[in-house]
Amino acid sequence: MSASYNQIAGQSAERLAALSDGIFAVAMTLLVLELRVPGRELIHSEGDLRHALGPLGPQLLVYLMSFVTLGIFWVGQQTQLNHLSRSHRDLTWIHMAFLFAVTLMPFSTRFLAEFLTYRTAVIAYWANILILGAALYFSWGYATRAKLVKEDIPSEVPAAVCRRILVAQSLYAFGALLCIFGTLWSIAFIVLVQLNYAIGPRFPRKA
Amino acid sequence: MSASYNQIAGQSAERLAALSDGIFAVAMTLLVLELRVPGRELIHSEGDLRHALGPLGPQLLVYLMSFVTLGIFWVGQQTQLNHLSRSHRDLTWIHMAFLFAVTLMPFSTRFLAEFLTYRTAVIAYWANILILGAALYFSWGYATRAKLVKEDIPSEVPAAVCRRILVAQSLYAFGALLCIFGTLWSIAFIVLVQLNYAIGPRFPRKA
Amino acid sequence: MSASYNQIAGQSAERLAALSDGIFAVAMTLLVLELRVPGRELIHSEGDLRHALGPLGPQLLVYLMSFVTLGIFWVGQQTQLNHLSRSHRDLTWIHMAFLFAVTLMPFSTRFLAEFLTYRTAVIAYWANILILGAALYFSWGYATRAKLVKEDIPSEVPAAVCRRILVAQSLYAFGALLCIFGTLWSIAFIVLVQLNYAIGPRFPRKA
Amino acid sequence: MSASYNQIAGQSAERLAALSDGIFAVAMTLLVLELRVPGRELIHSEGDLRHALGPLGPQLLVYLMSFVTLGIFWVGQQTQLNHLSRSHRDLTWIHMAFLFAVTLMPFSTRFLAEFLTYRTAVIAYWANILILGAALYFSWGYATRAKLVKEDIPSEVPAAVCRRILVAQSLYAFGALLCIFGTLWSIAFIVLVQLNYAIGPRFPRKA
Repeated sequence: MSASYNQIAGQSAERLAALSDGIFAVAMTLLVLELRVPGRELIHSEGDLRHALGPLGPQLLVYLMSFVTLGIFWVGQQTQLNHLSRSHRDLTWIHMAFLFAVTLMPFSTRFLAEFLTYRTAVIAYWANILILGAALYFSWGYATRAKLVKEDIPSEVPAAVCRRILVAQSLYAFGALLCIFGTLWSIAFIVLVQLNYAIGPRFPRKA
Repeated sequence: MSASYNQIAGQSAERLAALSDGIFAVAMTLLVLELRVPGRELIHSEGDLRHALGPLGPQLLVYLMSFVTLGIFWVGQQTQLNHLSRSHRDLTWIHMAFLFAVTLMPFSTRFLAEFLTYRTAVIAYWANILILGAALYFSWGYATRAKLVKEDIPSEVPAAVCRRILVAQSLYAFGALLCIFGTLWSIAFIVLVQLNYAIGPRFPRKA
Repeated sequence: MSASYNQIAGQSAERLAALSDGIFAVAMTLLVLELRVPGRELIHSEGDLRHALGPLGPQLLVYLMSFVTLGIFWVGQQTQLNHLSRSHRDLTWIHMAFLFAVTLMPFSTRFLAEFLTYRTAVIAYWANILILGAALYFSWGYATRAKLVKEDIPSEVPAAVCRRILVAQSLYAFGALLCIFGTLWSIAFIVLVQLNYAIGPRFPRKA
Repeated sequence: MSASYNQIAGQSAERLAALSDGIFAVAMTLLVLELRVPGRELIHSEGDLRHALGPLGPQLLVYLMSFVTLGIFWVGQQTQLNHLSRSHRDLTWIHMAFLFAVTLMPFSTRFLAEFLTYRTAVIAYWANILILGAALYFSWGYATRAKLVKEDIPSEVPAAVCRRILVAQSLYAFGALLCIFGTLWSIAFIVLVQLNYAIGPRFPRKA
């Protein structure tokens, strides 16, 4: 029974991509939803209002960092999905684990935004990134072993994908470790890593 | 009048799939949205913060269980939709009932997370799963009777889909019944059933 | 300037369909989000919990009614979009008005759920339905006049679409009028109209 | 390493369009979510309820203005994406900046709705529009320089797109400046600009 059902279940990479785009879209929009407008009763002048915006600055930076994190993993996942010839039931479930970690991101982000100076918050945030990376790593490993990857990609690409995930995760782990010296060191380092992945490659390396 | 309108209405299986992906994506992301960050005023040290995370553990498990539930039904629905040659107005409305049950899931989940030890909460959660299963069962029955299913699927598949839904729902019903002995027995059994559907088939049966 | 820009802007019916599916998906899921789990501090037994669910019943019915409303208009809009050969900038903006009314629906629904016995709430709800219907009516009129409709649809269909919208809106308006006698008469009548559109056509007329 | 990964990453304009539609859909629906139903305990008659709706009027107008803003930028972005032959990693990141500004819009809108008479709120709102416009401007510039634009578009279109963005942003900036005389002048002017872009072109210019 299971065999014949599983043969036809979960084979559409396009529907998986559509569900993923939806979950990323909701998670990315909800990040910022927690930014609270200052209470009206405390504001009596333009000066009050500008002052009230001050504390939102660091929060906004954490949201931006998480938006970039989700953006990086969205690019990573879509790169994998675009290179699958088809999906498979098991692969779908690896991506479900990935998507669960995506839905946790708004929580991890609020947690970090609220407790910026607590190591516990940095570790929780890093753990979330670790699950995202691990799921993509297993997904790619499974897809290549199960021959779900399109045959027209350059032969060096599969190994490049794995290396990239390992290097990025090593950098994130090092960033998390830096919280021994202070959580802001961790956050600054993670932001630098992300800027490198989002913006960096536009420069020298491309040549 | 109705006849000529209904001939052209609700015939696109792709748009139904797109709406479904959207509703699943929102519901799956909202599940976790209720996870509340601990109040800042109660936290004075790393120890406080780690302690404050403790009560979130069981809640997170319930959210994960619901995420897996929604994942299972998403795979189930997409398997059906992928095998339709076209949709039909009546079929669209069966799926609307299914989608309404999907939108109820965040409520059932919060309800269970809040009242883990109450049988009423387990029964409500199970009732939600029952509606999901019943809608998929009727949807498949309607689609096969109305010849909306693609003709190239193996002949044993239609019956396999029905059997699978019946077996799964019997297991869920048995799990719900276990709340006579204690709600945690119910929850543990339902989690086992889900793990079987999500992970299990990777082993022996496939060979 | 505007001329050459407008020639290429807003011409994709598919992207409009995708945005619409997204907005419907979010609105349909948010409807139910306001269903509040009973407060833990008030619950001391299974009996308390079952009692606390009681007041949720009427609210759930209003949410279901709104889900069906949105379902009906989703089918109506997708029927139109599926029969367009292409979109057009002006048509896009008519659909934006339609989508704005869709995003108002969760508010109208909460408003009615909270003030079931107030005529003001029924009128506001009906006004929302009226905007939805008017937008679809104008959209179809524009599409037929501007020759955006595919040429292969039966010749009686364009008029059938208009008639259907007018008949449905007349019934909704009559339902709203019934609030002179009592708001529950209005709601009951509107629910009957909706059941007719969602389920009714399965019977006699189809033969 | 980066080179071979970047060659295959972020190249799908369709997935970028799907993510964008999702983020726009969530942001557009969340705008209105903040419209709060009046508290039940304050309402004792139909008159009370009608009165309680009064203060929602200006808020609703601000939400409508933001819905139109997002609609204008959605049309603008989809016009660009539809004319790309493919995407590119760098272009994806320019659009990520654009989408981040989209997710900020519900915040800017609530901020303005709450502090309609404060210049700080108008400036913040305008800054959000400025980021949206700047991102689209850079996106188009990058796409034309990197030869990602389809070759079959009329030769005057690329320049028309840039001019349109510059003109619109000049008008928005002038509108923001008007807050020297009063914030309502700013808001009224911005609404007029938007109506021109959404409705205006239906008249004379088209002939």
